[in-house]
Amino acid sequence: MTADATETTVTEEVVAALRATADPRLHELIEGLVRHLHDFVRETRLTREEWEKAVGFLTETGQTCTDTRQEFILLSDVLGVSMLVETVNGHHTAGVTRSTVLGPFHMSASPVRELGDSIDLVGDGEPCVVSGRVLDEDGTPLPGAVLDVWQADAEGYYDVQRPDLRPAGNGRGLFTADSEGRFRFRTCVPAPYPIPTDGPVGELLRATGRHPYRPAHIHFIATADGHEPVTTHIFVGGSDHLDSDAVFAVKWSLVKDFAPTDDPSLAREFGVPNPFRHARFDLVLERSA
Amino acid sequence: MTADATETTVTEEVVAALRATADPRLHELIEGLVRHLHDFVRETRLTREEWEKAVGFLTETGQTCTDTRQEFILLSDVLGVSMLVETVNGHHTAGVTRSTVLGPFHMSASPVRELGDSIDLVGDGEPCVVSGRVLDEDGTPLPGAVLDVWQADAEGYYDVQRPDLRPAGNGRGLFTADSEGRFRFRTCVPAPYPIPTDGPVGELLRATGRHPYRPAHIHFIATADGHEPVTTHIFVGGSDHLDSDAVFAVKWSLVKDFAPTDDPSLAREFGVPNPFRHARFDLVLERSA
Ligand SMILES: [Fe+2]
Ligand SMILES: [Fe+2]
Repeated sequence: MTADATETTVTEEVVAALRATADPRLHELIEGLVRHLHDFVRETRLTREEWEKAVGFLTETGQTCTDTRQEFILLSDVLGVSMLVETVNGHHTAGVTRSTVLGPFHMSASPVRELGDSIDLVGDGEPCVVSGRVLDEDGTPLPGAVLDVWQADAEGYYDVQRPDLRPAGNGRGLFTADSEGRFRFRTCVPAPYPIPTDGPVGELLRATGRHPYRPAHIHFIATADGHEPVTTHIFVGGSDHLDSDAVFAVKWSLVKDFAPTDDPSLAREFGVPNPFRHARFDLVLERSA
Repeated sequence: MTADATETTVTEEVVAALRATADPRLHELIEGLVRHLHDFVRETRLTREEWEKAVGFLTETGQTCTDTRQEFILLSDVLGVSMLVETVNGHHTAGVTRSTVLGPFHMSASPVRELGDSIDLVGDGEPCVVSGRVLDEDGTPLPGAVLDVWQADAEGYYDVQRPDLRPAGNGRGLFTADSEGRFRFRTCVPAPYPIPTDGPVGELLRATGRHPYRPAHIHFIATADGHEPVTTHIFVGGSDHLDSDAVFAVKWSLVKDFAPTDDPSLAREFGVPNPFRHARFDLVLERSA
Protein backbone atom coordinates (compact mmCIF):
# COMPACT_ATOMS: atom_id res chain seq x y z
CA MET A 1 0.00 0.00 0.00
CA THR A 2 1.50 3.32 -0.98
CA ALA A 3 -1.51 5.67 -1.01
CA ASP A 4 -4.47 5.88 1.34
CA ALA A 5 -7.27 3.51 0.35
CA THR A 6 -10.14 4.93 -1.66
CA GLU A 7 -13.71 3.70 -2.03
CA THR A 8 -12.66 1.32 -4.77
CA THR A 9 -9.15 0.32 -3.73
CA VAL A 10 -10.32 -0.93 -0.34
CA THR A 11 -12.39 -3.60 -2.11
CA GLU A 12 -9.39 -4.74 -4.14
CA GLU A 13 -7.29 -4.82 -0.97
CA VAL A 14 -9.78 -7.15 0.71
CA VAL A 15 -10.06 -9.36 -2.38
CA ALA A 16 -6.26 -9.59 -2.55
CA ALA A 17 -6.11 -10.62 1.12
CA LEU A 18 -8.31 -13.64 0.28
CA ARG A 19 -5.81 -15.04 -2.24
CA ALA A 20 -4.53 -17.80 0.09
CA THR A 21 -8.00 -19.32 0.63
CA ALA A 22 -7.44 -23.08 0.32
CA ASP A 23 -10.95 -24.09 -0.78
CA PRO A 24 -11.73 -22.60 -4.22
CA ARG A 25 -15.50 -22.63 -3.62
CA LEU A 26 -15.11 -20.78 -0.32
CA HIS A 27 -12.84 -18.32 -2.12
CA GLU A 28 -15.54 -17.69 -4.74
CA LEU A 29 -18.26 -17.25 -2.11
CA ILE A 30 -16.34 -14.89 0.16
CA GLU A 31 -15.05 -12.81 -2.73
CA GLY A 32 -18.59 -12.54 -4.12
CA LEU A 33 -19.92 -11.59 -0.70
CA VAL A 34 -17.26 -8.87 -0.26
CA ARG A 35 -17.92 -7.42 -3.71
CA HIS A 36 -21.70 -7.28 -3.16
CA LEU A 37 -21.45 -5.90 0.38
CA HIS A 38 -19.04 -3.21 -0.79
CA ASP A 39 -21.22 -2.35 -3.82
CA PHE A 40 -24.19 -2.03 -1.45
CA VAL A 41 -22.29 0.36 0.85
CA ARG A 42 -21.03 2.49 -2.07
CA GLU A 43 -24.38 2.63 -3.89
CA THR A 44 -26.41 3.51 -0.80
CA ARG A 45 -23.70 5.78 0.72
CA LEU A 46 -24.35 3.92 3.97
CA THR A 47 -23.82 6.22 6.95
CA ARG A 48 -22.02 5.28 10.16
CA GLU A 49 -25.30 5.49 12.09
CA GLU A 50 -26.95 3.10 9.61
CA TRP A 51 -23.96 0.75 9.88
CA GLU A 52 -24.27 0.82 13.68
CA LYS A 53 -27.98 0.03 13.44
CA ALA A 54 -27.23 -2.87 11.10
CA VAL A 55 -24.61 -4.24 13.53
CA GLY A 56 -27.14 -3.94 16.37
CA PHE A 57 -29.87 -5.60 14.30
CA LEU A 58 -27.69 -8.56 13.32
CA THR A 59 -26.45 -8.96 16.90
CA GLU A 60 -30.01 -8.98 18.24
CA THR A 61 -31.03 -11.45 15.53
CA GLY A 62 -28.28 -13.85 16.63
CA GLN A 63 -29.12 -13.39 20.28
CA THR A 64 -32.82 -14.08 19.64
CA CYS A 65 -31.92 -17.59 18.44
CA THR A 66 -32.48 -20.43 20.91
CA ASP A 67 -32.80 -24.21 20.68
CA THR A 68 -36.38 -23.68 19.51
CA ARG A 69 -36.15 -20.44 17.57
CA GLN A 70 -34.06 -19.58 14.50
CA GLU A 71 -34.33 -15.85 13.87
CA PHE A 72 -31.70 -15.82 11.08
CA ILE A 73 -33.70 -18.36 9.06
CA LEU A 74 -36.72 -16.12 9.65
CA LEU A 75 -34.73 -13.13 8.39
CA SER A 76 -33.62 -15.07 5.31
CA ASP A 77 -37.26 -16.10 4.79
CA VAL A 78 -38.79 -12.60 4.94
CA LEU A 79 -36.11 -11.24 2.59
CA GLY A 80 -36.98 -13.94 0.05
CA VAL A 81 -33.45 -15.37 0.25
CA SER A 82 -34.61 -18.80 1.44
CA MET A 83 -37.12 -19.08 -1.40
CA LEU A 84 -34.50 -17.97 -3.91
CA VAL A 85 -32.02 -20.60 -2.64
CA GLU A 86 -34.76 -23.23 -3.03
CA THR A 87 -35.50 -21.98 -6.54
CA VAL A 88 -31.83 -21.98 -7.57
CA ASN A 89 -31.41 -25.54 -6.24
CA GLY A 90 -34.84 -26.92 -7.09
CA HIS A 91 -35.63 -29.70 -9.53
CA HIS A 92 -37.32 -28.37 -12.59
CA THR A 93 -38.15 -31.63 -14.38
CA ALA A 94 -41.76 -31.51 -15.52
CA GLY A 95 -44.07 -33.35 -13.14
CA VAL A 96 -41.62 -33.45 -10.23
CA THR A 97 -42.97 -32.00 -6.96
CA ARG A 98 -41.76 -28.43 -6.50
CA SER A 99 -39.75 -27.53 -3.42
CA THR A 100 -40.31 -24.62 -1.09
CA VAL A 101 -38.69 -23.19 2.04
CA LEU A 102 -37.74 -25.26 5.07
CA GLY A 103 -38.88 -22.53 7.45
CA PRO A 104 -37.64 -21.98 11.00
CA PHE A 105 -39.69 -24.66 12.80
CA HIS A 106 -37.99 -27.86 11.68
CA MET A 107 -36.12 -27.86 14.96
CA SER A 108 -36.77 -31.20 16.62
CA ALA A 109 -36.76 -34.77 15.29
CA SER A 110 -40.28 -35.79 14.29
CA PRO A 111 -41.58 -38.81 16.23
CA VAL A 112 -41.78 -42.05 14.23
CA ARG A 113 -45.44 -42.85 13.58
CA GLU A 114 -47.41 -45.61 11.86
CA LEU A 115 -49.35 -44.93 8.68
CA GLY A 116 -52.83 -43.77 9.67
CA ASP A 117 -51.69 -42.34 13.03
CA SER A 118 -52.72 -38.88 14.07
CA ILE A 119 -50.13 -36.13 14.44
CA ASP A 120 -52.74 -34.01 16.24
CA LEU A 121 -52.11 -35.07 19.84
CA VAL A 122 -54.62 -32.57 21.19
CA GLY A 123 -57.57 -33.15 18.93
CA ASP A 124 -59.30 -29.80 19.12
CA GLY A 125 -59.12 -28.78 15.46
CA GLU A 126 -61.13 -29.64 12.37
CA PRO A 127 -60.47 -33.33 11.57
CA CYS A 128 -58.45 -33.93 8.47
CA VAL A 129 -56.87 -36.79 6.55
CA VAL A 130 -53.85 -36.35 4.29
CA SER A 131 -53.16 -39.23 1.94
CA GLY A 132 -51.24 -39.89 -1.23
CA ARG A 133 -48.31 -41.69 -2.74
CA VAL A 134 -44.59 -41.16 -3.19
CA LEU A 135 -43.64 -41.79 -6.81
CA ASP A 136 -40.69 -41.82 -9.16
CA GLU A 137 -40.82 -39.30 -12.00
CA ASP A 138 -42.09 -42.11 -14.28
CA GLY A 139 -44.98 -42.84 -11.88
CA THR A 140 -43.47 -45.97 -10.28
CA PRO A 141 -44.34 -46.10 -6.55
CA LEU A 142 -41.44 -45.73 -4.10
CA PRO A 143 -42.02 -48.20 -1.24
CA GLY A 144 -40.11 -47.28 1.91
CA ALA A 145 -39.94 -43.59 1.05
CA VAL A 146 -39.79 -41.56 4.25
CA LEU A 147 -41.94 -38.49 4.90
CA ASP A 148 -41.05 -36.02 7.62
CA VAL A 149 -44.18 -33.96 8.30
CA TRP A 150 -44.71 -30.93 10.53
CA GLN A 151 -47.43 -28.32 10.83
CA ALA A 152 -48.92 -25.63 13.02
CA ASP A 153 -51.98 -26.50 15.07
CA ALA A 154 -55.53 -25.21 14.54
CA GLU A 155 -54.57 -22.03 16.37
CA GLY A 156 -51.47 -21.44 14.25
CA TYR A 157 -48.71 -22.55 16.64
CA TYR A 158 -45.96 -25.16 16.36
CA ASP A 159 -45.41 -27.37 19.39
CA VAL A 160 -42.07 -25.65 20.18
CA GLN A 161 -43.80 -22.28 20.43
CA ARG A 162 -46.13 -23.38 23.22
CA PRO A 163 -44.35 -26.08 25.23
CA ASP A 164 -46.68 -25.25 28.15
CA LEU A 165 -49.84 -25.95 26.15
CA ARG A 166 -48.82 -28.57 23.58
CA PRO A 167 -46.95 -31.87 23.98
CA ALA A 168 -43.60 -32.11 22.18
CA GLY A 169 -44.16 -33.76 18.80
CA ASN A 170 -47.64 -32.31 18.38
CA GLY A 171 -48.14 -31.70 14.67
CA ARG A 172 -45.06 -33.76 13.76
CA GLY A 173 -44.57 -37.26 12.39
CA LEU A 174 -42.06 -39.41 10.54
CA PHE A 175 -43.88 -41.85 8.24
CA THR A 176 -42.66 -44.64 5.98
CA ALA A 177 -44.62 -45.28 2.79
CA ASP A 178 -46.06 -48.79 2.36
CA SER A 179 -45.19 -51.38 -0.30
CA GLU A 180 -47.13 -49.39 -2.89
CA GLY A 181 -45.61 -46.04 -1.94
CA ARG A 182 -48.78 -44.96 -0.14
CA PHE A 183 -48.95 -42.80 2.98
CA ARG A 184 -51.80 -41.55 5.12
CA PHE A 185 -52.06 -39.66 8.39
CA ARG A 186 -54.67 -37.93 10.47
CA THR A 187 -54.35 -34.37 11.68
CA CYS A 188 -56.31 -31.16 12.07
CA VAL A 189 -56.54 -28.48 9.40
CA PRO A 190 -53.63 -26.12 10.15
CA ALA A 191 -54.37 -22.43 10.63
CA PRO A 192 -52.63 -19.55 8.87
CA TYR A 193 -50.17 -18.07 11.32
CA PRO A 194 -48.03 -15.03 11.87
CA ILE A 195 -44.30 -15.70 11.96
CA PRO A 196 -42.90 -14.61 15.34
CA THR A 197 -42.99 -10.81 15.51
CA ASP A 198 -41.58 -10.20 18.99
CA GLY A 199 -37.97 -10.16 17.72
CA PRO A 200 -35.89 -8.10 15.27
CA VAL A 201 -37.54 -9.69 12.21
CA GLY A 202 -40.92 -8.51 13.52
CA GLU A 203 -39.48 -4.99 13.84
CA LEU A 204 -38.29 -5.18 10.25
CA LEU A 205 -41.74 -6.26 9.03
CA ARG A 206 -43.42 -3.39 10.89
CA ALA A 207 -40.87 -0.87 9.61
CA THR A 208 -41.47 -2.03 6.03
CA GLY A 209 -45.28 -2.03 6.36
CA ARG A 210 -45.65 -5.79 5.89
CA HIS A 211 -47.96 -8.28 7.59
CA PRO A 212 -46.39 -11.38 9.18
CA TYR A 213 -48.89 -14.02 8.01
CA ARG A 214 -48.33 -17.25 6.20
CA PRO A 215 -51.18 -19.08 4.46
CA ALA A 216 -52.14 -22.40 6.10
CA HIS A 217 -49.76 -25.21 5.14
CA ILE A 218 -48.23 -28.55 6.09
CA HIS A 219 -44.47 -29.09 5.71
CA PHE A 220 -42.97 -32.20 4.12
CA ILE A 221 -39.47 -33.51 3.55
CA ALA A 222 -39.62 -36.62 1.35
CA THR A 223 -36.62 -38.93 0.92
CA ALA A 224 -36.32 -42.17 -1.04
CA ASP A 225 -33.33 -44.28 -2.10
CA GLY A 226 -31.90 -43.27 -5.45
CA HIS A 227 -33.88 -40.01 -5.53
CA GLU A 228 -33.32 -36.38 -4.75
CA PRO A 229 -34.99 -35.41 -1.47
CA VAL A 230 -37.60 -32.67 -1.65
CA THR A 231 -38.44 -30.07 1.02
CA THR A 232 -41.89 -28.68 0.40
CA HIS A 233 -45.32 -27.71 1.76
CA ILE A 234 -48.88 -28.30 0.78
CA PHE A 235 -51.01 -25.18 1.14
CA VAL A 236 -54.66 -25.31 2.16
CA GLY A 237 -56.66 -24.20 -0.88
CA GLY A 238 -58.69 -21.07 -0.14
CA SER A 239 -56.55 -20.08 2.85
CA ASP A 240 -56.05 -16.40 3.61
CA HIS A 241 -52.68 -14.89 2.57
CA LEU A 242 -52.03 -17.28 -0.34
CA ASP A 243 -51.22 -14.23 -2.45
CA SER A 244 -49.11 -12.42 0.15
CA ASP A 245 -47.15 -15.09 2.04
CA ALA A 246 -44.73 -13.28 4.39
CA VAL A 247 -41.94 -15.62 3.23
CA PHE A 248 -42.80 -15.77 -0.51
CA ALA A 249 -43.04 -19.59 -0.44
CA VAL A 250 -46.31 -20.24 -2.29
CA LYS A 251 -46.13 -22.26 -5.48
CA TRP A 252 -49.50 -22.79 -7.07
CA SER A 253 -48.81 -26.44 -7.84
CA LEU A 254 -48.57 -26.97 -4.06
CA VAL A 255 -51.98 -25.49 -3.24
CA LYS A 256 -54.31 -28.45 -2.59
CA ASP A 257 -58.00 -28.89 -2.13
CA PHE A 258 -58.67 -29.87 1.48
CA ALA A 259 -62.02 -31.32 0.38
CA PRO A 260 -64.91 -31.23 2.85
CA THR A 261 -65.97 -34.88 3.00
CA ASP A 262 -69.22 -36.23 4.43
CA ASP A 263 -68.83 -40.03 4.19
CA PRO A 264 -69.39 -42.00 7.43
CA SER A 265 -67.89 -45.23 6.13
CA LEU A 266 -64.76 -43.50 4.81
CA ALA A 267 -64.52 -41.60 8.11
CA ARG A 268 -64.68 -44.96 9.96
CA GLU A 269 -61.99 -46.40 7.68
CA PHE A 270 -59.70 -43.44 8.39
CA GLY A 271 -60.61 -43.33 12.08
CA VAL A 272 -61.80 -39.71 12.05
CA PRO A 273 -65.12 -38.10 13.02
CA ASN A 274 -67.50 -37.43 10.13
CA PRO A 275 -67.54 -34.94 8.39
CA PHE A 276 -63.83 -34.30 7.81
CA ARG A 277 -61.48 -32.66 5.33
CA HIS A 278 -59.43 -34.76 2.93
CA ALA A 279 -56.27 -33.59 1.17
CA ARG A 280 -54.72 -35.81 -1.48
CA PHE A 281 -51.09 -35.21 -2.42
CA ASP A 282 -48.74 -37.31 -4.54
CA LEU A 283 -45.06 -36.54 -4.10
CA VAL A 284 -43.03 -37.11 -7.27
CA LEU A 285 -39.26 -37.33 -6.75
CA GLU A 286 -36.53 -36.85 -9.31
CA ARG A 287 -34.07 -39.70 -9.80
CA SER A 288 -30.56 -38.93 -8.52
CA ALA A 289 -27.97 -38.30 -11.21
CA MET B 1 -49.22 -14.38 -8.38
CA THR B 2 -50.38 -16.58 -11.21
CA ALA B 3 -47.29 -18.65 -12.05
CA ASP B 4 -44.70 -20.20 -9.76
CA ALA B 5 -41.89 -17.81 -8.88
CA THR B 6 -38.69 -18.04 -10.87
CA GLU B 7 -35.17 -16.97 -9.96
CA THR B 8 -35.89 -13.45 -11.08
CA THR B 9 -39.56 -13.01 -10.22
CA VAL B 10 -38.98 -13.85 -6.57
CA THR B 11 -36.78 -10.75 -6.28
CA GLU B 12 -39.48 -8.55 -7.79
CA GLU B 13 -42.05 -10.10 -5.45
CA VAL B 14 -39.95 -9.17 -2.42
CA VAL B 15 -39.29 -5.67 -3.73
CA ALA B 16 -43.04 -5.20 -4.34
CA ALA B 17 -43.79 -6.32 -0.78
CA LEU B 18 -41.64 -3.42 0.51
CA ARG B 19 -43.77 -0.77 -1.20
CA ALA B 20 -45.51 0.35 2.02
CA THR B 21 -42.25 1.17 3.83
CA ALA B 22 -42.92 4.52 5.51
CA ASP B 23 -39.33 5.81 5.68
CA PRO B 24 -37.96 6.40 2.16
CA ARG B 25 -34.35 5.91 3.25
CA LEU B 26 -35.16 2.58 4.92
CA HIS B 27 -37.00 1.59 1.75
CA GLU B 28 -33.91 2.36 -0.35
CA LEU B 29 -31.61 0.45 2.01
CA ILE B 30 -33.75 -2.68 2.32
CA GLU B 31 -34.49 -2.81 -1.40
CA GLY B 32 -30.76 -2.44 -2.16
CA LEU B 33 -29.94 -5.15 0.36
CA VAL B 34 -32.51 -7.54 -1.14
CA ARG B 35 -31.26 -6.93 -4.69
CA HIS B 36 -27.60 -7.51 -3.73
CA LEU B 37 -28.32 -10.57 -1.59
CA HIS B 38 -30.40 -12.09 -4.38
CA ASP B 39 -27.75 -11.28 -7.01
CA PHE B 40 -25.16 -12.96 -4.78
CA VAL B 41 -27.29 -16.12 -4.46
CA ARG B 42 -27.99 -16.28 -8.21
CA GLU B 43 -24.39 -15.57 -9.28
CA THR B 44 -22.83 -18.07 -6.90
CA ARG B 45 -25.64 -20.68 -7.28
CA LEU B 46 -25.56 -20.89 -3.49
CA THR B 47 -26.44 -24.42 -2.34
CA ARG B 48 -28.77 -25.28 0.55
CA GLU B 49 -25.81 -26.64 2.53
CA GLU B 50 -23.90 -23.37 2.02
CA TRP B 51 -27.01 -21.41 3.06
CA GLU B 52 -27.28 -23.55 6.21
CA LYS B 53 -23.62 -22.92 7.00
CA ALA B 54 -24.14 -19.18 6.52
CA VAL B 55 -27.14 -19.22 8.88
CA GLY B 56 -25.08 -21.13 11.45
CA PHE B 57 -22.14 -18.75 11.05
CA LEU B 58 -24.28 -15.63 11.52
CA THR B 59 -26.07 -17.17 14.51
CA GLU B 60 -22.76 -18.03 16.16
CA THR B 61 -21.45 -14.54 15.41
CA GLY B 62 -24.45 -13.01 17.21
CA GLN B 63 -24.16 -15.40 20.10
CA THR B 64 -20.44 -14.65 20.52
CA CYS B 65 -21.29 -11.00 21.28
CA THR B 66 -21.26 -9.98 24.94
CA ASP B 67 -21.08 -6.70 26.84
CA THR B 68 -17.34 -6.67 26.15
CA ARG B 69 -17.12 -8.34 22.75
CA GLN B 70 -18.67 -7.30 19.43
CA GLU B 71 -18.13 -10.11 16.92
CA PHE B 72 -20.32 -8.49 14.20
CA ILE B 73 -18.13 -5.36 14.21
CA LEU B 74 -15.16 -7.70 13.96
CA LEU B 75 -16.78 -9.44 10.98
CA SER B 76 -17.49 -6.10 9.32
CA ASP B 77 -13.87 -5.12 10.00
CA VAL B 78 -12.22 -8.21 8.47
CA LEU B 79 -14.44 -7.96 5.37
CA GLY B 80 -13.30 -4.34 4.87
CA VAL B 81 -16.90 -3.09 5.28
CA SER B 82 -16.09 -0.91 8.29
CA MET B 83 -13.18 0.74 6.47
CA LEU B 84 -15.34 1.29 3.40
CA VAL B 85 -18.10 2.92 5.49
CA GLU B 86 -15.45 5.20 7.01
CA THR B 87 -14.12 6.03 3.55
CA VAL B 88 -17.59 6.76 2.13
CA ASN B 89 -18.37 9.03 5.09
CA GLY B 90 -14.91 10.48 5.65
CA HIS B 91 -13.89 14.09 5.26
CA HIS B 92 -11.69 14.56 2.27
CA THR B 93 -10.77 18.21 2.66
CA ALA B 94 -7.02 18.59 2.23
CA GLY B 95 -5.21 18.76 5.54
CA VAL B 96 -8.07 17.36 7.62
CA THR B 97 -7.19 14.32 9.75
CA ARG B 98 -8.28 11.12 8.02
CA SER B 99 -10.70 8.80 9.77
CA THR B 100 -10.36 5.07 10.21
CA VAL B 101 -12.38 2.24 11.77
CA LEU B 102 -13.88 2.39 15.25
CA GLY B 103 -12.99 -1.24 15.91
CA PRO B 104 -14.74 -3.57 18.36
CA PHE B 105 -13.11 -2.39 21.61
CA HIS B 106 -14.77 0.97 22.16
CA MET B 107 -17.12 -0.74 24.58
CA SER B 108 -16.87 1.16 27.85
CA ALA B 109 -16.86 4.86 28.67
CA SER B 110 -13.29 6.12 28.94
CA PRO B 111 -12.43 7.56 32.38
CA VAL B 112 -12.09 11.34 32.51
CA ARG B 113 -8.42 12.21 32.97
CA GLU B 114 -6.34 15.37 33.33
CA LEU B 115 -3.90 16.45 30.65
CA GLY B 116 -0.57 14.77 31.35
CA ASP B 117 -2.15 11.81 33.20
CA SER B 118 -1.12 8.30 32.36
CA ILE B 119 -3.60 5.89 30.78
CA ASP B 120 -1.20 3.03 31.53
CA LEU B 121 -2.42 1.99 34.97
CA VAL B 122 -0.02 -0.96 35.13
CA GLY B 123 3.21 0.63 34.00
CA ASP B 124 5.06 -2.37 32.64
CA GLY B 125 5.48 -1.23 29.02
CA GLU B 126 7.89 1.07 27.22
CA PRO B 127 7.20 4.62 28.48
CA CYS B 128 5.64 6.90 25.92
CA VAL B 129 4.23 10.41 25.64
CA VAL B 130 1.63 11.41 23.08
CA SER B 131 1.17 15.13 22.57
CA GLY B 132 -0.26 17.46 20.02
CA ARG B 133 -3.01 19.94 19.29
CA VAL B 134 -6.58 19.91 18.05
CA LEU B 135 -6.99 22.43 15.26
CA ASP B 136 -9.55 23.84 12.89
CA GLU B 137 -8.86 23.28 9.20
CA ASP B 138 -7.38 26.81 9.03
CA GLY B 139 -4.95 25.99 11.85
CA THR B 140 -6.84 27.81 14.64
CA PRO B 141 -6.55 25.88 17.92
CA LEU B 142 -9.77 24.38 19.30
CA PRO B 143 -9.75 24.87 23.09
CA GLY B 144 -12.07 22.49 24.90
CA ALA B 145 -11.94 19.86 22.15
CA VAL B 146 -12.50 16.42 23.68
CA LEU B 147 -10.32 13.39 22.90
CA ASP B 148 -11.51 9.90 23.68
CA VAL B 149 -8.42 7.66 23.60
CA TRP B 150 -8.10 3.89 23.90
CA GLN B 151 -5.35 1.42 23.16
CA ALA B 152 -4.09 -2.10 23.74
CA ASP B 153 -1.41 -2.61 26.38
CA ALA B 154 2.23 -3.57 25.79
CA GLU B 155 1.15 -7.19 25.44
CA GLY B 156 -1.56 -6.41 22.88
CA TYR B 157 -4.69 -6.64 25.03
CA TYR B 158 -7.48 -4.17 25.78
CA ASP B 159 -8.61 -3.93 29.40
CA VAL B 160 -11.93 -5.65 28.62
CA GLN B 161 -10.10 -8.70 27.27
CA ARG B 162 -8.28 -9.40 30.52
CA PRO B 163 -10.47 -8.12 33.37
CA ASP B 164 -8.61 -10.51 35.70
CA LEU B 165 -5.19 -8.97 34.90
CA ARG B 166 -5.93 -5.34 34.06
CA PRO B 167 -8.00 -2.70 35.87
CA ALA B 168 -11.05 -1.37 33.97
CA GLY B 169 -10.05 1.80 32.17
CA ASN B 170 -6.48 0.67 31.58
CA GLY B 171 -5.38 2.14 28.25
CA ARG B 172 -8.38 4.50 28.14
CA GLY B 173 -8.81 8.19 28.83
CA LEU B 174 -11.10 11.11 28.07
CA PHE B 175 -9.09 14.33 27.77
CA THR B 176 -10.08 17.95 27.23
CA ALA B 177 -7.67 20.13 25.24
CA ASP B 178 -6.36 23.24 27.00
CA SER B 179 -6.91 26.88 26.07
CA GLU B 180 -4.51 26.53 23.15
CA GLY B 181 -5.99 23.26 21.89
CA ARG B 182 -3.10 21.26 23.29
CA PHE B 183 -3.32 17.77 24.72
CA ARG B 184 -0.79 15.40 26.26
CA PHE B 185 -0.94 12.06 27.98
CA ARG B 186 1.40 9.35 29.18
CA THR B 187 1.06 5.73 28.20
CA CYS B 188 3.10 2.73 27.09
CA VAL B 189 3.85 1.91 23.46
CA PRO B 190 0.98 -0.34 22.35
CA ALA B 191 1.83 -3.73 20.88
CA PRO B 192 0.51 -5.12 17.59
CA TYR B 193 -2.22 -7.57 18.45
CA PRO B 194 -4.28 -10.33 16.92
CA ILE B 195 -8.00 -9.64 16.80
CA PRO B 196 -9.85 -12.32 18.80
CA THR B 197 -9.61 -15.62 16.90
CA ASP B 198 -11.52 -17.94 19.22
CA GLY B 199 -14.88 -17.13 17.58
CA PRO B 200 -16.45 -17.43 14.13
CA VAL B 201 -14.42 -14.52 12.71
CA GLY B 202 -11.24 -16.38 13.68
CA GLU B 203 -12.54 -19.45 11.82
CA LEU B 204 -13.18 -17.28 8.78
CA LEU B 205 -9.63 -15.88 8.87
CA ARG B 206 -8.13 -19.37 9.11
CA ALA B 207 -10.33 -20.69 6.30
CA THR B 208 -9.25 -17.80 4.07
CA GLY B 209 -5.54 -18.14 4.91
CA ARG B 210 -5.27 -14.76 6.64
CA HIS B 211 -3.38 -13.69 9.74
CA PRO B 212 -5.31 -11.87 12.48
CA TYR B 213 -2.78 -9.14 13.32
CA ARG B 214 -3.21 -5.41 13.48
CA PRO B 215 -0.22 -3.06 13.47
CA ALA B 216 0.32 -1.21 16.77
CA HIS B 217 -2.03 1.78 17.13
CA ILE B 218 -3.82 4.14 19.49
CA HIS B 219 -7.51 4.96 18.88
CA PHE B 220 -8.90 8.51 19.01
CA ILE B 221 -12.32 10.07 18.71
CA ALA B 222 -11.98 13.86 18.60
CA THR B 223 -14.98 16.16 19.02
CA ALA B 224 -15.13 19.95 19.09
CA ASP B 225 -18.01 22.43 18.92
CA GLY B 226 -18.85 23.44 15.38
CA HIS B 227 -16.73 20.69 13.86
CA GLU B 228 -17.25 17.21 12.45
CA PRO B 229 -16.06 14.57 14.89
CA VAL B 230 -13.33 12.25 13.66
CA THR B 231 -12.78 8.59 14.61
CA THR B 232 -9.23 7.61 13.86
CA HIS B 233 -5.99 5.90 15.00
CA ILE B 234 -2.37 6.77 15.06
CA PHE B 235 -0.18 3.87 14.00
CA VAL B 236 3.27 3.25 15.47
CA GLY B 237 5.77 3.87 12.67
CA GLY B 238 7.81 0.75 11.89
CA SER B 239 5.28 -1.60 13.51
CA ASP B 240 4.84 -5.08 12.09
CA HIS B 241 1.76 -5.63 9.88
CA LEU B 242 1.46 -2.03 8.68
CA ASP B 243 1.13 -3.42 5.15
CA SER B 244 -1.30 -6.24 6.00
CA ASP B 245 -3.63 -4.92 8.70
CA ALA B 246 -6.30 -7.61 9.29
CA VAL B 247 -8.98 -4.90 9.18
CA PHE B 248 -7.57 -2.77 6.30
CA ALA B 249 -7.50 0.37 8.45
CA VAL B 250 -4.03 1.78 7.77
CA LYS B 251 -3.82 5.20 6.19
CA TRP B 252 -0.27 6.36 5.67
CA SER B 253 -1.01 9.87 6.90
CA LEU B 254 -1.87 8.29 10.28
CA VAL B 255 1.46 6.45 10.68
CA LYS B 256 3.52 8.48 13.17
CA ASP B 257 7.05 8.44 14.37
CA PHE B 258 7.14 7.28 18.01
CA ALA B 259 10.53 8.94 18.36
CA PRO B 260 13.01 7.40 20.80
CA THR B 261 13.87 10.32 23.09
CA ASP B 262 16.78 10.51 25.50
CA ASP B 263 16.29 13.83 27.30
CA PRO B 264 16.24 13.73 31.12
CA SER B 265 14.82 17.23 31.56
CA LEU B 266 12.00 16.61 29.04
CA ALA B 267 11.33 13.24 30.73
CA ARG B 268 11.04 15.05 34.08
CA GLU B 269 8.70 17.63 32.57
CA PHE B 270 6.45 14.88 31.19
CA GLY B 271 6.79 12.74 34.32
CA VAL B 272 8.13 9.67 32.53
CA PRO B 273 11.35 7.63 32.97
CA ASN B 274 14.17 8.50 30.59
CA PRO B 275 14.57 7.36 27.78
CA PHE B 276 11.04 7.32 26.41
CA ARG B 277 9.17 7.40 23.10
CA HIS B 278 7.44 10.56 21.96
CA ALA B 279 4.63 10.67 19.37
CA ARG B 280 3.39 14.04 18.16
CA PHE B 281 0.01 14.22 16.49
CA ASP B 282 -2.10 17.21 15.51
CA LEU B 283 -5.77 16.50 14.88
CA VAL B 284 -7.32 18.78 12.27
CA LEU B 285 -11.12 18.85 12.23
CA GLU B 286 -13.40 19.94 9.44
CA ARG B 287 -15.87 22.71 10.20
CA SER B 288 -19.49 21.55 10.31
CA ALA B 289 -21.62 22.58 7.35
FE1 LIG C 1 -44.65 -23.42 8.64
FE1 LIG D 1 -7.52 -1.39 18.27
